[in-house]
Amino acid sequence: MVVGLGTGSTAKHAVDRIADLLNQGKLKDIVGIPTSKQTHQQASSLGIPLSDLDTHPTVDLAIDGADEVDPDLNLVKGRGGSLLREKMIEGAARKFVVIVDESKWVPYVGASGAMPVEVVPFCSKYTQDCLQKIFEYAGCVAELRTLSGGQPFLTDNGNHIVNLFFKSDVGDLRAASDAIHRLPGVIEHGMFIGMATAVIVAGESGVTVKNKP
Amino acid sequence: MVVGLGTGSTAKHAVDRIADLLNQGKLKDIVGIPTSKQTHQQASSLGIPLSDLDTHPTVDLAIDGADEVDPDLNLVKGRGGSLLREKMIEGAARKFVVIVDESKWVPYVGASGAMPVEVVPFCSKYTQDCLQKIFEYAGCVAELRTLSGGQPFLTDNGNHIVNLFFKSDVGDLRAASDAIHRLPGVIEHGMFIGMATAVIVAGESGVTVKNKP
Repeated sequence: MVVGLGTGSTAKHAVDRIADLLNQGKLKDIVGIPTSKQTHQQASSLGIPLSDLDTHPTVDLAIDGADEVDPDLNLVKGRGGSLLREKMIEGAARKFVVIVDESKWVPYVGASGAMPVEVVPFCSKYTQDCLQKIFEYAGCVAELRTLSGGQPFLTDNGNHIVNLFFKSDVGDLRAASDAIHRLPGVIEHGMFIGMATAVIVAGESGVTVKNKP
Repeated sequence: MVVGLGTGSTAKHAVDRIADLLNQGKLKDIVGIPTSKQTHQQASSLGIPLSDLDTHPTVDLAIDGADEVDPDLNLVKGRGGSLLREKMIEGAARKFVVIVDESKWVPYVGASGAMPVEVVPFCSKYTQDCLQKIFEYAGCVAELRTLSGGQPFLTDNGNHIVNLFFKSDVGDLRAASDAIHRLPGVIEHGMFIGMATAVIVAGESGVTVKNKP
């Protein structure tokens, strides 16, 4: 089984658990596809056999966390910075299971904070301004993600991240997605639309599972 | 006047000519925005004052060559490898003038050779296969652009180029463009749809100008 290994504080536990089960012999024939350099390092140090999409273009199952989940199970991901590799690998997965706690439920995409967009470093200020203009109708403020020293944050792919903050619902997400992709300086955005097969939610009253309709 | 400076054998002459006119005092107050490292070097060595989109987000006029021009003045660009910066800068231009010789006229996009796509290096083989599948209906063959030693060609932005060869017309170009952009590993493609304001064509019988309808 080819398993996409997510990135972030929640996915980290899933990767640890997969390694435990492998070491106990309860799981066999697992090949992991890490969605970031960080997860690659973790999984590799735990002894999980690893591969990539070039060698394994079909992923049986991907497991990851999310920053937001909306009522239609659309996600916002990438506040940690690894949205591009996540989207490539989770987009190639037959099943994509998302694990969140109930604080991640939002009424609409962007309701709890940034929707990150990975952009090429070349003239990223210009791309940032173009992104803000596209979503002017939703009161969008676009900000380049920076490190504490003020220099741009760099993704695993050496690109910049522009964070979009919406004051209201952007509406049709697929139209919003296409509008973002049509900007030449954009590589990928953090809206994962219709991709999650199931979302596992941990809350005070226990664990519930929401399946894609 | 802010002028986008194209890249390639034809654009090179335009950049030379702009520098001549500046040095002769026949042009004044020109700021050039180069569309590649190569053009940056050429224009800089000729003394043309240079800037970028971050500082000058509106370009008055862009001048460039093209690899193909179709009957609706849609272009294929990027066989030289600099399509991304070209599209950012020429997309920001009020007027975009294209200079070609008549060998560049084609009945449809891709009729004379490759339509290049700039992709992230991470799992570019996978992205290449996805691109080929999208255009299976047009007999598409996708090939990673390589150098003579076999290693991948790198763009000015450090990315790979996948060349798409179509056996037949792909049809609706805007739909094709959106389909390409929706692939997470894709950054930009070489179809410049509806962007050219005018195309200047040099042929055996002289020079003609085709204006955007």
